Amino acid sequence: MSQFDNVSIIKKANIYFDGKVSSRTVLFADGSKKTLGLMAPGEYTFGTEAAELMEILAGSVQVKLPGADSWQTVAAGESFNVPANSSFDIQVETLTDYCCSYL
Amino acid sequence: MSQFDNVSIIKKANIYFDGKVSSRTVLFADGSKKTLGLMAPGEYTFGTEAAELMEILAGSVQVKLPGADSWQTVAAGESFNVPANSSFDIQVETLTDYCCSYL
Repeated sequence: MSQFDNVSIIKKANIYFDGKVSSRTVLFADGSKKTLGLMAPGEYTFGTEAAELMEILAGSVQVKLPGADSWQTVAAGESFNVPANSSFDIQVETLTDYCCSYL
Repeated sequence: MSQFDNVSIIKKANIYFDGKVSSRTVLFADGSKKTLGLMAPGEYTFGTEAAELMEILAGSVQVKLPGADSWQTVAAGESFNVPANSSFDIQVETLTDYCCSYL
């Protein structure tokens, strides 16, 4: 699916790490929420409140999930899950386009 | 208005200048289109096909419009129009959040 239909989008961007990471919030009719975002190359740590599904739309990242000892590669077309109330480390190798679903 | 309702959003980001400028395309029920984008500090030249209304949501820019001799400051809450089939120069001083309407 290349687009989300019948949604609302918050005009104001979400900005993190001085703009190296940014996203737009998309609100769905069923009350669920996703963000569509971009990550510039770099290394970041994100905290979660709700559980998250991170889908990589373009680009490639290395991710270290809670409790993991090693990094895993997640490329375009792949995704990873992050438990609620936790955090994950991410190394962004190339400009990466992502969709985050709040579960 | 802080959000757009009953719209579609293209998942894939529009990327320009190696990611220094990026946007998401928002499609409206009446067939019109807008983009919500971010510009990192820098100087850029954009060409237009359709006429455009550029609204600065956050940040500040200097713009030189077609036929203009001088730069004008456009800050958050302000906007500028660009004719169809032309181009404009923009100096972005701080990370700038914008909404572009295609007229």
